[in-house]
Amino acid sequence: MKSFRDPVHNLIAFGEDDQLLIDLINTAEVQRLRRIRQLGLSNIVYPGAEHSRFVHSLGVAHLTRRFLDEDRAGEQTRGAYALREYRHLALAAALLHDIGHGPFSHALEAVTGIRHERFTSAMIRSKKTEVHQVLEAYASGFAEQVARLIEKDFPESRAIVKLLSSQLDMDRTDYLLRDALMTGAGYGTFDVEWLLHVMRIGEVQGEPEIGLDLARGQSIAEDYIMCRYYMYLHVYFHRLTRSAEVQVERTLARAAEVGADLPGFPAMRALLRGDLRMAEVNGVSAATAEWSVISDYLELDDHLLWSALRAFTRHEDPVLADLSQRLLNRHLFHSVDVHSMEEAERWLARMGRIAKKKGLPAASYVIFDQAGSQAYKDSYLGSDEHDPTFEQIYLFDASGNATELARQSFIVEAVKSRRASVSRVLFPREWLDEG
Amino acid sequence: MKSFRDPVHNLIAFGEDDQLLIDLINTAEVQRLRRIRQLGLSNIVYPGAEHSRFVHSLGVAHLTRRFLDEDRAGEQTRGAYALREYRHLALAAALLHDIGHGPFSHALEAVTGIRHERFTSAMIRSKKTEVHQVLEAYASGFAEQVARLIEKDFPESRAIVKLLSSQLDMDRTDYLLRDALMTGAGYGTFDVEWLLHVMRIGEVQGEPEIGLDLARGQSIAEDYIMCRYYMYLHVYFHRLTRSAEVQVERTLARAAEVGADLPGFPAMRALLRGDLRMAEVNGVSAATAEWSVISDYLELDDHLLWSALRAFTRHEDPVLADLSQRLLNRHLFHSVDVHSMEEAERWLARMGRIAKKKGLPAASYVIFDQAGSQAYKDSYLGSDEHDPTFEQIYLFDASGNATELARQSFIVEAVKSRRASVSRVLFPREWLDEG
Amino acid sequence: MKSFRDPVHNLIAFGEDDQLLIDLINTAEVQRLRRIRQLGLSNIVYPGAEHSRFVHSLGVAHLTRRFLDEDRAGEQTRGAYALREYRHLALAAALLHDIGHGPFSHALEAVTGIRHERFTSAMIRSKKTEVHQVLEAYASGFAEQVARLIEKDFPESRAIVKLLSSQLDMDRTDYLLRDALMTGAGYGTFDVEWLLHVMRIGEVQGEPEIGLDLARGQSIAEDYIMCRYYMYLHVYFHRLTRSAEVQVERTLARAAEVGADLPGFPAMRALLRGDLRMAEVNGVSAATAEWSVISDYLELDDHLLWSALRAFTRHEDPVLADLSQRLLNRHLFHSVDVHSMEEAERWLARMGRIAKKKGLPAASYVIFDQAGSQAYKDSYLGSDEHDPTFEQIYLFDASGNATELARQSFIVEAVKSRRASVSRVLFPREWLDEG
Amino acid sequence: MKSFRDPVHNLIAFGEDDQLLIDLINTAEVQRLRRIRQLGLSNIVYPGAEHSRFVHSLGVAHLTRRFLDEDRAGEQTRGAYALREYRHLALAAALLHDIGHGPFSHALEAVTGIRHERFTSAMIRSKKTEVHQVLEAYASGFAEQVARLIEKDFPESRAIVKLLSSQLDMDRTDYLLRDALMTGAGYGTFDVEWLLHVMRIGEVQGEPEIGLDLARGQSIAEDYIMCRYYMYLHVYFHRLTRSAEVQVERTLARAAEVGADLPGFPAMRALLRGDLRMAEVNGVSAATAEWSVISDYLELDDHLLWSALRAFTRHEDPVLADLSQRLLNRHLFHSVDVHSMEEAERWLARMGRIAKKKGLPAASYVIFDQAGSQAYKDSYLGSDEHDPTFEQIYLFDASGNATELARQSFIVEAVKSRRASVSRVLFPREWLDEG
Repeated sequence: MKSFRDPVHNLIAFGEDDQLLIDLINTAEVQRLRRIRQLGLSNIVYPGAEHSRFVHSLGVAHLTRRFLDEDRAGEQTRGAYALREYRHLALAAALLHDIGHGPFSHALEAVTGIRHERFTSAMIRSKKTEVHQVLEAYASGFAEQVARLIEKDFPESRAIVKLLSSQLDMDRTDYLLRDALMTGAGYGTFDVEWLLHVMRIGEVQGEPEIGLDLARGQSIAEDYIMCRYYMYLHVYFHRLTRSAEVQVERTLARAAEVGADLPGFPAMRALLRGDLRMAEVNGVSAATAEWSVISDYLELDDHLLWSALRAFTRHEDPVLADLSQRLLNRHLFHSVDVHSMEEAERWLARMGRIAKKKGLPAASYVIFDQAGSQAYKDSYLGSDEHDPTFEQIYLFDASGNATELARQSFIVEAVKSRRASVSRVLFPREWLDEG
Repeated sequence: MKSFRDPVHNLIAFGEDDQLLIDLINTAEVQRLRRIRQLGLSNIVYPGAEHSRFVHSLGVAHLTRRFLDEDRAGEQTRGAYALREYRHLALAAALLHDIGHGPFSHALEAVTGIRHERFTSAMIRSKKTEVHQVLEAYASGFAEQVARLIEKDFPESRAIVKLLSSQLDMDRTDYLLRDALMTGAGYGTFDVEWLLHVMRIGEVQGEPEIGLDLARGQSIAEDYIMCRYYMYLHVYFHRLTRSAEVQVERTLARAAEVGADLPGFPAMRALLRGDLRMAEVNGVSAATAEWSVISDYLELDDHLLWSALRAFTRHEDPVLADLSQRLLNRHLFHSVDVHSMEEAERWLARMGRIAKKKGLPAASYVIFDQAGSQAYKDSYLGSDEHDPTFEQIYLFDASGNATELARQSFIVEAVKSRRASVSRVLFPREWLDEG
Repeated sequence: MKSFRDPVHNLIAFGEDDQLLIDLINTAEVQRLRRIRQLGLSNIVYPGAEHSRFVHSLGVAHLTRRFLDEDRAGEQTRGAYALREYRHLALAAALLHDIGHGPFSHALEAVTGIRHERFTSAMIRSKKTEVHQVLEAYASGFAEQVARLIEKDFPESRAIVKLLSSQLDMDRTDYLLRDALMTGAGYGTFDVEWLLHVMRIGEVQGEPEIGLDLARGQSIAEDYIMCRYYMYLHVYFHRLTRSAEVQVERTLARAAEVGADLPGFPAMRALLRGDLRMAEVNGVSAATAEWSVISDYLELDDHLLWSALRAFTRHEDPVLADLSQRLLNRHLFHSVDVHSMEEAERWLARMGRIAKKKGLPAASYVIFDQAGSQAYKDSYLGSDEHDPTFEQIYLFDASGNATELARQSFIVEAVKSRRASVSRVLFPREWLDEG
Repeated sequence: MKSFRDPVHNLIAFGEDDQLLIDLINTAEVQRLRRIRQLGLSNIVYPGAEHSRFVHSLGVAHLTRRFLDEDRAGEQTRGAYALREYRHLALAAALLHDIGHGPFSHALEAVTGIRHERFTSAMIRSKKTEVHQVLEAYASGFAEQVARLIEKDFPESRAIVKLLSSQLDMDRTDYLLRDALMTGAGYGTFDVEWLLHVMRIGEVQGEPEIGLDLARGQSIAEDYIMCRYYMYLHVYFHRLTRSAEVQVERTLARAAEVGADLPGFPAMRALLRGDLRMAEVNGVSAATAEWSVISDYLELDDHLLWSALRAFTRHEDPVLADLSQRLLNRHLFHSVDVHSMEEAERWLARMGRIAKKKGLPAASYVIFDQAGSQAYKDSYLGSDEHDPTFEQIYLFDASGNATELARQSFIVEAVKSRRASVSRVLFPREWLDEG
């Protein structure tokens, strides 16, 4: 029995049935998530947003268990049965779905060229991780099942995949509530008790599916979609957060370019030398991932990256030193919105001239940022490259017939066609007054 | 104009009148507080408690301004006048009162031998800090005034000292509310709106004093004292947090002993070599503090210490490597409560034998911890070494006569005589099964 | 000085400056609002929704004062000046805007044929009310000004009219927050701190206007519109609440028809005899309203109506007795949605036949209800019969230029064209199984 | 399946297993509780406190079900078994525990001379009530069991009695949270999630008992006791609420004295003629209670009493008319605290003289009030007339050994010996300036 107090869910308690979860929580790989902030660099704008991926992961496991344990009258469908059958699998996947995340999430992915999902899979499958060992001790072959479930490659049950990863899943439910509370931004709050109360397990084309009660669930689904929209607009795509993310990316790129190193931290060397990227070229799959790559990656956390930036302020390359200093003291790049390529190019040219005059590399100081084109995790707001059927939120009527939310809701219809994308040119604020 | 969203106060906005605060917030010394957790190692027990001293400092400035700007009908006393006179001073001191804090607060103080208050003073007085320069730009001699106010050496107004630092001050008000929310521990919540509403400015022996309305403020004062009592009992003195703090202290001590260093980080070397301690011997006062000491200290943050622990896991000294590994993976020492010196000595002897058998230094693995005897910041629960008149909470009746809360309240009387102290012996959990 | 504790705003305190408000609160007409529920019959569905119009009126005055007292940097516009000039007028109007409400608001209006606004005006202007006397004691002619302001006939300042009565006013702000909390329905919650923070006083076509900051206020305005939409959909138009409202209306109509009376309560007689309705024919204006009409109306409250229903359960007319019994024991009519006049007529005919067979008047038991066509107070969701310029929510950019929210926001555009109307046929549930 | 939204518990949902509860909720006797305010006249001070005994009763049933359904690892004790056996009994009793309450609770009891508990019992046992019929339809003899459980005459299980009625029961848990939220008083809030989490079923002297986990439950128990203490001090015993209660009592006494009646309301006549009191003389037991007494009593609700007061304002007895007017317009008696019988008598004599001079009955206008001596429902704060073992809160250690909270907690020890009693003399405020 292990209980946590939590600002979002108040009490998160795992009992005797959930010993597997408790054992997983105690692994080095899950404990590492304590050192990775959920919102990367957003705390630079929202000073309360210091929460870790660890507490988020606990929250997702908690919500998943609440959903699975809810007593839904009359739900004797195949889907409900399937979910009960896969209870431990779902809980393990809920807890572990983020273990591959590195510090400063998207900025780091831009440097390594590897999406964190690849590391999640590799950590679960690698025989050397504690997580793998705990899963296999629970049941032989269990690690492979968990990895496949997280990868959405789980034909045994689409419903359970969607519970963890779809437009309206337990992952998003936790992060919206948590990010809204911690940022204090007030936009992301919706009635999670009601949401869990009106969620349903139905069937679509003979397949078990997760959805909502048609009569009572449409408004909460709309509210949820709107919350997500606002959180993107105001928090995740915040102008200054994007500045910080872009600055981190360029600082690390510069560090790699000038061959910077941080003695005592082989992981940092691997990152900057591109060793992690090379691994990608060869494919980071369960079978082939070199343990050395995973073990280096496991050392990467917020502390190491911030410490590296601190050390780089004394680097002999003045560009690297300057870029690092700016991040530590929150001297963030100014950004101007541009509405056409011509406008972008005018700004890039103008600032490029200033950079040249100062003898500074434009690649480090003048950046064209298209946030919507980045690999953001959320696609409902725009188009979707994955299997689009995973993206549908179903509403079930009393007879079990399903309608898609966007067909039913003029609100969702209106939001769906919006792209929360931005095009900006970024550069040092003080350059505005020059040239 | 600058506004922050905050999970505790929702909106913290500083307007045109508060440009001084905005300038101070932008200094490197205040920005550094983003990298220092308010609760040091408590997040190891309460995973939500990741909030920084930066956001706490904003909260204290916000509450101080709310108190000062509250329109108190009929408060035409000298005290009220004095507070208005010192408005900017009070706000600056509220924001800066914690800038001297280092990472892992008390554990670090045990290593440096210097209390963080000394660094706060030194930073404010040192001509080279940005904070000093902003204060002096506002008014000549202002830095000295702010420093004296924080040091409680401000005979110009006892009331304003007490507003910032007394049994019921804006500092504690913010940290209780914030720590309660972030830990999720639920004990520290009290009605801050009512508290601000019933606070009064009165006089005691001809001196302006801060207090509460007698008729309407006693219960909220009691509730506040009880909240503080529970937060000490359950959060600040939590058994596992104390284990982590003690482990950090012994790990750093061991690192110093074996001459460990972290290349690229002169601050770490200064810390482990005792250079910061030596500074203390010579007195860190405004006049004499070496800039090098301050500038090294300014680099110490949570990131650096956690990164150092990571590097030390590979140190050639197996004791240092082991101690560091335990912290990173949350393998915390077990602790047993002891109720007499005899009992303590029995445990120390038994565990000392196991250490010896294993060839390990008992100083690093077997620890006698008396939390109450530590330099904890709160003294109302026990006795007080400072000027006891600063420790009194006054209740003012309609005629302005003051009574001390503890004389009026049987609850406070009951709590006051309690010491929330603990005596424990700590050692590795797995040793319980041996010897 | 008078302070109230409130579940919505926590502390509502009126100080020395607001003695006028305190005097108004103590009048019989304002105290009467304690006996009128804000949500009429909604508590029959949402059992927590028992809050009175009294506490709502305090809330509106509180929000108005917060808006007026907010220190808006740089707002030196004529509008800001006008608002400060009319401070006491705005506060009095905010407190008194609802004093004309009767019990079971819309159901009663259907019986009296008089909208509550008429009584509000009459009470403020009638020399015999305490409210009038307090207002005139404050300043001669003040009552007339307050009445005109509430009637939106206040050319001196459109801005102040809009602060109290427009799409985004302090009235709606309080009732949405309050109704959402009390019903527990969770849809109506928005961030009121942020809303007040981003509200602005600007100018449109040379006229002072209330609006929001363009850059920071659009999302909160959308959120507010959405909250209102959901509250209508789920709370105000709730199927069973409408049943209860319709049943009350038909029960009172039947009581009038059979000449029912309630000895000891002249107001009840006046209501049922249509004396209040006749007054309307002759015009309830400031000048002509008979004091006897107002004084009868002042006795109408929730208690009297519920007591009358109780007494009517023993009336010799079995229809009246039955209708009254159904309301007291919450035996609410069933309702079926109809999507065409043909469908409505089929149901009306079918249920009419059952009524006939039972010898019961169809007028009392079979009702065609078109909620959207009722005089609901909110028009933004549909079309508007009043001056449409009062209905516009402005967004002001940094230079003070105004845009209308619906032109700027695709969300509001989408909601605006929706009518939250319903067409239903209502009848006793048990009749479903017959004929 | 029936679900309610609730400001306190958010969602209260009764599912298929709880059809008995749903049927009981639909009875006339439970629906009547919608018309009785939980806090009687407290809304006269706390304008938000309009909540009904109906919503409180739902809350108690909800908490009881949460407690019973909580999965407590390893609780295989007899007590846990007993609780599961009596699940439906406990839930029915939880819902029905207050159905005997009349309007203005204690004021009415002073007039009828009958405690509401007697009516609760009589209603459950009387064959004519809907509640009785629903209970007997569930199981023969069930009504008698429910009545005995509520009367604490249930030797089958002390534990289940204590769950519903003891120092720390589900009734108090709901009303403290609810009254604190609705009054806005902020004192009664404690962490109910944690409370339910640390509650235990143990054994004391071979008997199953309800209690708390020793290691984790002491602080929450203390917090709960403190909340109760403050709610008594500030809300339940509020000076002005007591004035209103005393005024209601004297007004009804005067009405009885002058033979006032309210045509159309036989219940009012029965109340004022003392018919309900006479019934008490003959004993209101299950067997003997006249249906006419119960049926009259069932008509008494807040609406009827307020309407009677309205009608009495026109009564020919000027004293009754004046007393009624004062209540409706919130002209509450002034009260002075007295600290000795001499002081009381001085005030009584002085005000008696004024009454005499005015030709008014002192019995109606000058009152000596000793609130602590009233039959308040809570005894932990003072001494207890009932079986004192019902009053103990047990803490269970890991081995199941029980300690009483007051022996363990210095806080509870300190509060326990306090009597929240008051002695006051009440009279019309304007008399202060006379005589």
